[in-house]
Amino acid sequence: MGGSEVVLLDFWPSMFGMRVRIALAEKGIEYEYKEQDLANKRALLYEMNPVHKKIPVLIHKGKPINDSGIIIQYIDETWNKKPQLMPSDPYVRAQARFWGDYVDKKVYVASKKTWALKGEEQEKGKKEFIEILKVLEGQIGDKPYFLGESFGYVDIALVTFYSWFHTCETLGNCNIEKECPKLIAWAKRCMQRESVSKTLPDSKKIYEFCIEMKNQFDF
Amino acid sequence: MGGSEVVLLDFWPSMFGMRVRIALAEKGIEYEYKEQDLANKRALLYEMNPVHKKIPVLIHKGKPINDSGIIIQYIDETWNKKPQLMPSDPYVRAQARFWGDYVDKKVYVASKKTWALKGEEQEKGKKEFIEILKVLEGQIGDKPYFLGESFGYVDIALVTFYSWFHTCETLGNCNIEKECPKLIAWAKRCMQRESVSKTLPDSKKIYEFCIEMKNQFDF
Repeated sequence: MGGSEVVLLDFWPSMFGMRVRIALAEKGIEYEYKEQDLANKRALLYEMNPVHKKIPVLIHKGKPINDSGIIIQYIDETWNKKPQLMPSDPYVRAQARFWGDYVDKKVYVASKKTWALKGEEQEKGKKEFIEILKVLEGQIGDKPYFLGESFGYVDIALVTFYSWFHTCETLGNCNIEKECPKLIAWAKRCMQRESVSKTLPDSKKIYEFCIEMKNQFDF
Repeated sequence: MGGSEVVLLDFWPSMFGMRVRIALAEKGIEYEYKEQDLANKRALLYEMNPVHKKIPVLIHKGKPINDSGIIIQYIDETWNKKPQLMPSDPYVRAQARFWGDYVDKKVYVASKKTWALKGEEQEKGKKEFIEILKVLEGQIGDKPYFLGESFGYVDIALVTFYSWFHTCETLGNCNIEKECPKLIAWAKRCMQRESVSKTLPDSKKIYEFCIEMKNQFDF
């Protein structure tokens, strides 16, 4: 490999990649960013994530770590200076893992249905997406961040989807803020952090990327 | 709730429930076992896991923790006496999480195809299952346990499926040991631990349960 001690293999519109970028920014870790062309996966990605061949991959001192949730925990445990991204209490930490997992399993698939499907299937997908967001909003309630006073793991896992909301709303013809005002208030609070606002791409750029992808793959 | 400090909501043939029982046995934690009737989910399960309504649920001092992987990490962090179930090095810990996640995402679904499907679909399912087991076997290699010298998180996540292998082999007409001899040698090594051998139900009981389930639900 040579070169940087910390390298990130990533793809700019990826919600999962953005998570790692936010975590690295929160910790003030310098790293080399290597954009991957997912249509033409490079040898390096195959070598560093032979099992899933997916971004993001964090390479620390030549050793790869895969999966955004695992990477964030690794970052938090390895660079254990403040801010702490995982809660220090084991019970709250279990809650953080539970909700991080919920976001992983539910939000991506449902969000995609709002812009990738058509007709009745899209309507069902939109309903499902809003229901999932309402569960998450119910958890946030009036707290500043997902699990309380501190920005951390679940906030990072969820807020990256905010950059795709404009696309979901425009192509899915829905209004997320109307349905989930507290969720949007929370997202805007997260956006006040430089780590988030500097990481999340412009919503319109995401929209253009999405349109291009839809045209290219005809869906 | 009243009563016990540690309560486990579980269902005896569940590979996910067995994981928690092994972890509790490894740590020597006493607990009250509450078998759940999954066909008639009880109010307690709904209250303690309102999001997924799934076993296992560990209730510690009245507070529920869901998801077997999250529960094992909680147990390890809360009762942090030996044996340590998660590796102490952050990089090896990331590996443990990665392979635990791999088992979660791949093994259950593929194993079910060997006994729940028929004809060509079953043949494809068997192939898929054996391929996944070979990936895991390749990781174990000649090491005593999944990640090296110590029994831990990934061993617990994977070994509970061993109690279902007889069912997969009998209903799927395949021979896992012939395909994956090192994996079976590893499973037998795990079975030398009391925590595992006392937790895993008799393979024949699992088989009978599976036949009953197949008859009841007609698949």
